[in-house]
Amino acid sequence: MGKSVRETFRVAAEPDLAVVDPRDRPIGPKDKSAAAEDMTDLGARLDRLQEALYAEATGAGRRSVLVVLQGMDTSGKGGVIRHVGGLVNPQGLHIASFKKPTPEELEHDFLWRVRKQVPHPGLIGLFDRSHYEDVLVPRVEGSISDDALRHRYEEINAFEAELVGRGVTVLKCLLHISPHEQAERLLARLDDPTKRWKYNPGDLDSRARWRDYQRAYSDALRYSDSDAAPWYVVPSDRKWYRNWAVASLLTETLAELDPQFPQPNIDVDAERARLAASLLV
Amino acid sequence: MGKSVRETFRVAAEPDLAVVDPRDRPIGPKDKSAAAEDMTDLGARLDRLQEALYAEATGAGRRSVLVVLQGMDTSGKGGVIRHVGGLVNPQGLHIASFKKPTPEELEHDFLWRVRKQVPHPGLIGLFDRSHYEDVLVPRVEGSISDDALRHRYEEINAFEAELVGRGVTVLKCLLHISPHEQAERLLARLDDPTKRWKYNPGDLDSRARWRDYQRAYSDALRYSDSDAAPWYVVPSDRKWYRNWAVASLLTETLAELDPQFPQPNIDVDAERARLAASLLV
Repeated sequence: MGKSVRETFRVAAEPDLAVVDPRDRPIGPKDKSAAAEDMTDLGARLDRLQEALYAEATGAGRRSVLVVLQGMDTSGKGGVIRHVGGLVNPQGLHIASFKKPTPEELEHDFLWRVRKQVPHPGLIGLFDRSHYEDVLVPRVEGSISDDALRHRYEEINAFEAELVGRGVTVLKCLLHISPHEQAERLLARLDDPTKRWKYNPGDLDSRARWRDYQRAYSDALRYSDSDAAPWYVVPSDRKWYRNWAVASLLTETLAELDPQFPQPNIDVDAERARLAASLLV
Repeated sequence: MGKSVRETFRVAAEPDLAVVDPRDRPIGPKDKSAAAEDMTDLGARLDRLQEALYAEATGAGRRSVLVVLQGMDTSGKGGVIRHVGGLVNPQGLHIASFKKPTPEELEHDFLWRVRKQVPHPGLIGLFDRSHYEDVLVPRVEGSISDDALRHRYEEINAFEAELVGRGVTVLKCLLHISPHEQAERLLARLDDPTKRWKYNPGDLDSRARWRDYQRAYSDALRYSDSDAAPWYVVPSDRKWYRNWAVASLLTETLAELDPQFPQPNIDVDAERARLAASLLV
């Protein structure tokens, strides 16, 4: 029995992104066509598990799942939402995207806007960026003191522990790409008129601080990884591998939750009789 | 050139559901496997159109689409959301389900909860039931006067005209099933432990008033169909045909809107040069 997908991608005890190869493929399909086959199977399993989770919450169930997606621009957060989220019934998803905070959001604690988007029981939440932006960006921009940064990590860890206590299973995925791959993807956005709307000149400013961001991410992995709210580092230079990895992490997590279809408190035979006797126009 | 899908399913001038066969198949695929092939093509077209609609709204675009799904219990409103919604990027969907009004909702005008769910620019809204419940149910239950009912229809028509004026393209689908098919589906929910959570004994009470509901629906079609916010009657005894029909109606509607990828106001050559000169760690 080999390692599970979660064991394989779980962040190391002493995280250093510099030593993780974004083209690594430590487990799973060897190429794109094998991945496509796997995705069909994963899709069927995930669809069934998602339906059971949703059904469970129509009874007494109070469980949900939250997938936090982080990564540099073009790392594929939107792609994962499309290709992994697209495997299940869209009614069972809660998708939230956290952009540059609005003036209203800035008037509140940094977790305020995040709390409003926590998935309700029965749902799979997909976060495109998250509260981690509030420890990554100010750190790279040098606009936060060490004390304040430490305090934010304490708040994040307390927040995630609270979620887990309420029945939200949290899994955090860092989509790890190389600067070379990012350049290719930004160029594709410039070259293709149907992708140009995704190009943001400001992305080059973040790109110029690549190493600072990698260090900030390594810190985030170090300060906020726990068995209750684990971080996974997903090699993401290959889109098909990234999608397969996140789909597998989510499927494995849901399979362990083992959600159950509730059995309503009805007399099935009596209902069958009522139905048989019911009006046939 | 034959009739379009929209022309084919558009409700008649003098609507009478009693004369529409829920197993009718006036256009499109002849069987399930042909429908599956068509759905692959429709999915690709719809996915592309949805992405363009979404992209358009990141620029100056203000357009969205709202699909209102109505029908008797088990008619397949949830199935359409799953199988037609599942054809596009879930990030481009806004799904809302209108159940029995809560005490808070009852304190407000019946359109209050609906207004909050109107899809924002760039999104495809999918309504599982809608404001039409507020003309159908009270009419069947006899809890509303003719004057009050007429007033609600005026409000609905004004509301939908307002939406259209704001750039929301409205299409309303009545999923039309037979009482025999409903009995089969209710029985399947009773027999299958993984479907039993969907069984609601109250559904048999609505079923007992089948003819009253058909008359109420015929009135709804008569009083609220317009070129701006048209009603389509979708024969829904065959699930594969129902899904194909709604996917086709949506695709045809979006194709006519012809959403455009915005071209951001950037100097593409200059950005290419900046990118080429950018840090490669």
